[in-house]
Amino acid sequence: MSFTPPTAEQRFLLDHIVGIADLAAHERFAAATPDLVDAIVEGAGAFAAGEYAPLNRAGDEIGAVWNDGVVTMPDGFRQAYQAFVANGWGSISAPEAFGGQGLPNVLATVVMEDLGTANMGFSLVNMLTPAAIEALIQHGTDAQRADWLPKLVTGEWNGTMNLTEPQAGSDVGALKTRATPAEDGSWRIAGTKIFITFGEHDLTDNIVHLVLARTPGAPEGTRGISLFIVPKIRLDGTPNDVRCVSIEHKLGIHASPTCVMAYGDKGDCHGWLIGAENGGMRAMFTMMNNARLNVGLQGVQIAERARQQAAAYARERVQGGQPIVAYPDVRRMLLRMAALTQAARALVYYAGGQLDRAHLGDGDAQARLDLLTPLAKAYGTDVGCEVSSLGVQVHGGMGYIEETGAAQHFRDARIAPIYEGTNGIQAADLVGRKLGLEGGAVFAALIADIRADAVPELAVLVDAVERAGATLATTSAEDRLAGSYPFLTMLSVATCGWLMARQARAAEAADADPAFLALKTAAARFYLERIVPEAVGLEAGATGGAALLYAVDAEALG
Amino acid sequence: MSFTPPTAEQRFLLDHIVGIADLAAHERFAAATPDLVDAIVEGAGAFAAGEYAPLNRAGDEIGAVWNDGVVTMPDGFRQAYQAFVANGWGSISAPEAFGGQGLPNVLATVVMEDLGTANMGFSLVNMLTPAAIEALIQHGTDAQRADWLPKLVTGEWNGTMNLTEPQAGSDVGALKTRATPAEDGSWRIAGTKIFITFGEHDLTDNIVHLVLARTPGAPEGTRGISLFIVPKIRLDGTPNDVRCVSIEHKLGIHASPTCVMAYGDKGDCHGWLIGAENGGMRAMFTMMNNARLNVGLQGVQIAERARQQAAAYARERVQGGQPIVAYPDVRRMLLRMAALTQAARALVYYAGGQLDRAHLGDGDAQARLDLLTPLAKAYGTDVGCEVSSLGVQVHGGMGYIEETGAAQHFRDARIAPIYEGTNGIQAADLVGRKLGLEGGAVFAALIADIRADAVPELAVLVDAVERAGATLATTSAEDRLAGSYPFLTMLSVATCGWLMARQARAAEAADADPAFLALKTAAARFYLERIVPEAVGLEAGATGGAALLYAVDAEALG
Repeated sequence: MSFTPPTAEQRFLLDHIVGIADLAAHERFAAATPDLVDAIVEGAGAFAAGEYAPLNRAGDEIGAVWNDGVVTMPDGFRQAYQAFVANGWGSISAPEAFGGQGLPNVLATVVMEDLGTANMGFSLVNMLTPAAIEALIQHGTDAQRADWLPKLVTGEWNGTMNLTEPQAGSDVGALKTRATPAEDGSWRIAGTKIFITFGEHDLTDNIVHLVLARTPGAPEGTRGISLFIVPKIRLDGTPNDVRCVSIEHKLGIHASPTCVMAYGDKGDCHGWLIGAENGGMRAMFTMMNNARLNVGLQGVQIAERARQQAAAYARERVQGGQPIVAYPDVRRMLLRMAALTQAARALVYYAGGQLDRAHLGDGDAQARLDLLTPLAKAYGTDVGCEVSSLGVQVHGGMGYIEETGAAQHFRDARIAPIYEGTNGIQAADLVGRKLGLEGGAVFAALIADIRADAVPELAVLVDAVERAGATLATTSAEDRLAGSYPFLTMLSVATCGWLMARQARAAEAADADPAFLALKTAAARFYLERIVPEAVGLEAGATGGAALLYAVDAEALG
Repeated sequence: MSFTPPTAEQRFLLDHIVGIADLAAHERFAAATPDLVDAIVEGAGAFAAGEYAPLNRAGDEIGAVWNDGVVTMPDGFRQAYQAFVANGWGSISAPEAFGGQGLPNVLATVVMEDLGTANMGFSLVNMLTPAAIEALIQHGTDAQRADWLPKLVTGEWNGTMNLTEPQAGSDVGALKTRATPAEDGSWRIAGTKIFITFGEHDLTDNIVHLVLARTPGAPEGTRGISLFIVPKIRLDGTPNDVRCVSIEHKLGIHASPTCVMAYGDKGDCHGWLIGAENGGMRAMFTMMNNARLNVGLQGVQIAERARQQAAAYARERVQGGQPIVAYPDVRRMLLRMAALTQAARALVYYAGGQLDRAHLGDGDAQARLDLLTPLAKAYGTDVGCEVSSLGVQVHGGMGYIEETGAAQHFRDARIAPIYEGTNGIQAADLVGRKLGLEGGAVFAALIADIRADAVPELAVLVDAVERAGATLATTSAEDRLAGSYPFLTMLSVATCGWLMARQARAAEAADADPAFLALKTAAARFYLERIVPEAVGLEAGATGGAALLYAVDAEALG
């Protein structure tokens, strides 16, 4: 299946939800002229459809192959990646001082969306490098930035995030990888990391691992973690003592090698501290917040791909003398898929716009971004799973046959609610940290903005969200966590409903393709009239408390 | 992962939801004494856990293998199947006249549940034979019953259902397989069937295909379809002209060969008509209704397996100094999984009890069964998908690694909403045929029964279901179909809520394992207090009509 880049949709969001013109009014982003924005939106889509999409099936069927520490990508991947580098698609939002184009980050979001819609597994190599760049910009020394950033910005080298260890998953503080001072001012790294995305591969000449480790005498838990640059090849050209021990056999994203990485097996793995000793968690959150928005975007990517494929199949497949798209329940599924995909995309792009405003020094935008990041990650990825499952369903029996490709999307989508902090961790972040930001004022401001637009279909849900938020703000930590996931979904749907309503209003006055506007309007109505009411009933779970969950012993849970 | 047969749960349902004692009070089922019921519940669970469960991973990883028309199952499958035959597990509910035990069908449901929980793909060979038996009992001649039933009843031969052709999926009436009279009173069959479960394998010495075909001059569509017995080996011992051309490469249930079957490639495939010429649809519905309850049961099976595995993992996996089962959101997922699994099981068992009452001549029970069959199939399988997805989530990153096994359940579960009539077809059946049965009296009687139990947590949902049912009964066919799926879910949740409330009341007075009763009570509360409210919001979709779905051209859907 081919894919058609959703350029009209992206352009519409940039105009009406992100406010790209407002961003370009700032000197820093003055280069983001309408023509350049058009060129990026069109160019990224064409590049992704032309270079990445044709490799999607091979990425799934052949996938990354490990042999004695070497990971080989299927034919064509290296060339496509080199074309990505040559075209400068990785450098959109990086600072000009390091070879970047200095454009708003939300334009990099457009590029990332297209790459991932074309080939989700492959695009992970493009997704984590920006996180490494951001960590170095914010926490590295001038010398480190000069050494590492230029080739990360072009994509000649890729970056990885090394958090997880076998005993330390969601509990990052339990990690055991050690860093001890070496004679030359570097650190000797020793330990094993798991679940390292693109930890080894043959796409680039070097790989820049950012590795969390403990220095001697470091405090227990997350306060004793430091972040290190640990390259595959050192700057002097010598190989570092870094080895990919194996890759995982996964449900999906087979084009993304998920590596077990051994650091310092021969006692000669060198790393360089980024930021302060024991300051690794802060640097890690810099990376994670960047990555979390991009994982939310993955939900959008896979939903878009699944949606397009299902719609195309429904127009072709004839049953009962007409294409199945003619049947009401098939249309219900397709419109639901469109509505959910558009809603999740609006949420991620809106959050992306806040990120750029935050970079311009807007503190309110930073606060709203902080509140919305767990929503974008968790709701975006839940949407990816639901839409890709509906995509299988629209295909009927053919959806269950691997050759059709619908099943690949269903498998690929399932990772996104898990990595970069499970969606449960996102929900805990929402109710534990974000809901109470500035004494609840950040949450209240979002609710006030939603109310200010006076969307009648949202009134009941927004009341319920506000009640639930008030309950959670005053209850015990356990009750808050017990209701966290339903609350996250409610607030996400309310926010998405608001963004969909705003788009529907913008569509009334917009000068765009009539077919695009018709779908935009119908999707917004479907979301507001049929999906929003479904979220109202989540209030019971959001406010029901923890006691019922503990009414049964762990052993009796089966 | 091992699995523990849910014997206490099954026994509780038989007592309190099925009313097994009432069934045994009838002469026909007098053999179903409490001791025999206990022996079946315990014995089937032990058999499934001992013989079928250990083959589940091999079934997935190796699966059925096709080579030049021959399908080979992995090591151990033939022995396990032979043990199934030797133990008589296939003969529970078949008539004594044909070697069966003449027991209530709901006891065969217990056996089928355990086999499928142990090994869903493998158990499909056991699932379709009863459908063939039922078709022969209801529509075959005495001679046909004498010829074919004994070895189908023991399981020495298995039965298959041959409906689908490449152009004829949900639209069965479009099939093209031909049957022409042969000189010896049989029919010559010619055509290709796809998606034939266990159409070829090495478990049995013969395979009895029930094949839908058209006779010369038959009317168009479903009124011109006849059903034929087409054995792999004819009764005289000669091979029939039947060949498995290939098997599908599927997302899951790899232990179940999904066959493309060629009938009559050499012009020498003989079949024998079952029932009247052009009466095939009636016979097919006999098979399908039987199979639909069993597919609903598959949702329960895979949910149970996923649930047990997730609960065990959550007790073992330590993060932050305690097993993850201690965390509220993990507990929320596990209790939700338990509540959904129990609810779906209650629905399927309750429907199964109605089937046995119908066999005793109870017309009201037949009518209720007709109403509940699409609910049991669709909601049961939706639950299987949701619970197996939650099972992946509880495992975190390990859930995405195939070796863990959680992903297999997620893949296996996804077929059930598709086959035996997609869930969309079930929803269409509900609003198109079942809602209006006896002028709506069948639906009204169910609602009245639910109301009679006066469960406060159900009041709002039942009101909404009743309103939606009234709307759908009087609206256009298109609007009815547009709302069919949300309506099916609402009605399913209301019915399940009722059955869960009845169980919670029974648990108050029951003499059973305290841990079992504690989970039963908590699951019922979770279902009533937190899941039931979620279904209320579906009213908007159920009654919103079709106009919005057609507001966008098919082309503009993307």
